[in-house]
Amino acid sequence: MNAAAEERPGAGSRIVDFLDDIGDVPIITEPQVVRRRSRDFFWYSPILNAQLHGKSAEVVVTPRHETDVVAIARAATRHGVALTPRGGGTGNYGQAVPLNGGALVDFSLMTHILWTKPGLLRVQAGAKMGAIDEALQISGWELRLHPSTKRTATIGGFVAGGSGGVGSITYGGLRDPGNIGAARIVTLEREPRIIELRADAAQKINRAFGTTGLITELEMPLGPRWRWIDVIIVFDEFIAAVETGRALALADGVIKKLVTPIAWPIPQAFADLKDHCPDGKSILVAMIAESSMETFRTLVHGRGVVTYEAATDESAGKVPLYEYCWNHTTLHMLKGDRSITYLQCLFPHDRLVATVEKMVATFGDEVLHHLEFSRYAGHVTASALPIVRYKSPERLTEIIATYEAAGVFIANPHVYTLEDGSRYRRADADQLGFKAEVDPYGLLNPGKMKSFVGRPWAAAE
Amino acid sequence: MNAAAEERPGAGSRIVDFLDDIGDVPIITEPQVVRRRSRDFFWYSPILNAQLHGKSAEVVVTPRHETDVVAIARAATRHGVALTPRGGGTGNYGQAVPLNGGALVDFSLMTHILWTKPGLLRVQAGAKMGAIDEALQISGWELRLHPSTKRTATIGGFVAGGSGGVGSITYGGLRDPGNIGAARIVTLEREPRIIELRADAAQKINRAFGTTGLITELEMPLGPRWRWIDVIIVFDEFIAAVETGRALALADGVIKKLVTPIAWPIPQAFADLKDHCPDGKSILVAMIAESSMETFRTLVHGRGVVTYEAATDESAGKVPLYEYCWNHTTLHMLKGDRSITYLQCLFPHDRLVATVEKMVATFGDEVLHHLEFSRYAGHVTASALPIVRYKSPERLTEIIATYEAAGVFIANPHVYTLEDGSRYRRADADQLGFKAEVDPYGLLNPGKMKSFVGRPWAAAE
Repeated sequence: MNAAAEERPGAGSRIVDFLDDIGDVPIITEPQVVRRRSRDFFWYSPILNAQLHGKSAEVVVTPRHETDVVAIARAATRHGVALTPRGGGTGNYGQAVPLNGGALVDFSLMTHILWTKPGLLRVQAGAKMGAIDEALQISGWELRLHPSTKRTATIGGFVAGGSGGVGSITYGGLRDPGNIGAARIVTLEREPRIIELRADAAQKINRAFGTTGLITELEMPLGPRWRWIDVIIVFDEFIAAVETGRALALADGVIKKLVTPIAWPIPQAFADLKDHCPDGKSILVAMIAESSMETFRTLVHGRGVVTYEAATDESAGKVPLYEYCWNHTTLHMLKGDRSITYLQCLFPHDRLVATVEKMVATFGDEVLHHLEFSRYAGHVTASALPIVRYKSPERLTEIIATYEAAGVFIANPHVYTLEDGSRYRRADADQLGFKAEVDPYGLLNPGKMKSFVGRPWAAAE
Repeated sequence: MNAAAEERPGAGSRIVDFLDDIGDVPIITEPQVVRRRSRDFFWYSPILNAQLHGKSAEVVVTPRHETDVVAIARAATRHGVALTPRGGGTGNYGQAVPLNGGALVDFSLMTHILWTKPGLLRVQAGAKMGAIDEALQISGWELRLHPSTKRTATIGGFVAGGSGGVGSITYGGLRDPGNIGAARIVTLEREPRIIELRADAAQKINRAFGTTGLITELEMPLGPRWRWIDVIIVFDEFIAAVETGRALALADGVIKKLVTPIAWPIPQAFADLKDHCPDGKSILVAMIAESSMETFRTLVHGRGVVTYEAATDESAGKVPLYEYCWNHTTLHMLKGDRSITYLQCLFPHDRLVATVEKMVATFGDEVLHHLEFSRYAGHVTASALPIVRYKSPERLTEIIATYEAAGVFIANPHVYTLEDGSRYRRADADQLGFKAEVDPYGLLNPGKMKSFVGRPWAAAE
């Protein structure tokens, strides 16, 4: 047996039969590469790190176009092979980590922009969001929403595994009507179908971790491409940063993309921003349209001190400020202290500041707060990814319960199923019903939509 | 004495001395023209109609540029002549109706656009808002906010006498930070100064009815010029139109400029829209960006029936739908019934629908409701200009009291002073203090800021 053969799954296995059926679709079988591609940033969670350690696909398939995706879907259904779609692998709860082996469907070759119109874009699912915005540069448009991992995340991965991010202070989240235009998917039926899910129907694949179809194309709304200015303002007290952030968030006449108060000592972890983050000070990070900067300066005048102001720079080697926000904050903290972890909160919009104050007072140094002002269902509020000095799973459960008792919604990032991480502890009925239609055997990212019970797969029916 | 001389104010009067001092500034003295220019749409109010009937300037002066404005200000201060600045005369509470004669300063010759930048415009105060947007057409920008009288209203008049309007559902009102960039004014001092009021400071002239300086230039923020679609949706019940409007207003992913539920029988007065407004149905009028139309249709599907959809057309002879909204609704009603009048309401954002329902039930046919969804201080709510079947001043006062008891703020449009029409029944302290600085003798639109007491004017000090 030669080395290459050794690395391939055993002949006669479902995987081999599956690979035989997908023609010349490029594949990867080197175990180290397959294992690496099967991971995401679940290691931010000590709990998931233990649970997902070692989970891996058996093979990576890399479709070049929709015809390849259909071939992969047909072969998977024929041979009962689980498929886990994967974008940039920037998720945080193992969204794209296969629990039961099978094939990882890596969309990194499907990156074409199909068309743009004023305010709209159609693009293949594997395009990186940074690359999309770069391609749009001359058009005067840009993606409305992106995660802090914009430069490596794909648009398909964002829609399948994300919820909002930079831009949510203006447009709300991916769940809000109009923030996903349409999705085109391939089903996992004996005879795979191609379905176009338009407008509201596209919610069937939003944050479903790829369990409800293989997304091949997306239509996404665009926003005007302002010249964005990255700003840091420093405050003696965190709560003053929160109040200023809220005033800014509520100022509908100020065009903005990011409003992020960050409590000291978190900025201590921002080595490259040291000159702008004095010791002991909390900060407010913001992205403001250049034409709104004068109003912005007036609004923050007398509240905090602006220590940094420069056009957002996403070019190679530069670090835009949004890479210190959302879950990038956790990454910066982890560089210095591998024992920390984080939570995902949504504060109540009608008693935001009081609730933040209460949580800060309750947890002291055990939980370090930074907020992301966002619009949620039309209201200005804040989501948050607070840094937790991790002690034990039990203590983490206690902390979550304390937030929930204070009226803060927690989307638990220490679980890998849709249901456990969701507000209602159940899969959206639409998504559950839709999955029965498009993935009757439960071959898509199995185990992630835990309430779904598929038909038993059999070689023939 | 010839005819022309007869029409001029008596020699030796302050006015004649004033006119002698302003050089070649164009003037109008024909009494009919002066009287006509001294009016606005105060006749929507039977109360103001009685109070302001016959009020007129003695002369109209028409500055061509800022140097003329300074000459007018200097001459007015020297001779103790009252000045009332005037834009398009589209106000509704006599904002630009002189109470004590003097000179009307008509800005209709000062219409230059001084510059535009991405998201910003600098323009002379007398430019009509319709003309500004027309000039901006190729730039891809447009004014963020405009009244329903956009085609005849001037930008200076809007900022001095208005509060918001079409666009407020996205950007809030003129009071919100960032919605007025800057104002340049000429003061009414012995030696007039030119002052640039930037950012927050520009609020000193917002909705001050021209009492705090002669506005010569404005810097206004611009928004992206979407291709707007005018839409009418019909409903069996008004409250369903309100609920759908609210859902749309809260949908941050849907780009919109106007969201206006209008109760039957108001649409009966919209003769030209008859084909789209079936008998007995309430309607929702909206302006939606073309790229958001698919989401919009999904959102209203099953709630109401779309009867009209066409690109907003502001060309000559066409009537864009916003000319049925805000206070244009009153105008359409007045065409058929001169006995009606109206109110100005702001509903509470946190119990909007219930309060509207209560007011509809309370007043029945005596008050006909139409709402304008808006953002106010960062919250989605509705202002409203309900049509009132007018009975008496006493009944109008009762109606106002009933709204206020229900938590609805009323800006009374049947009074002509700043204070009586304002939420706090007093002039903003900043504006009052600023007026003492820039108009020490109280020569600017006297009687409108009633709490201001100027220094007595004397020929020399």
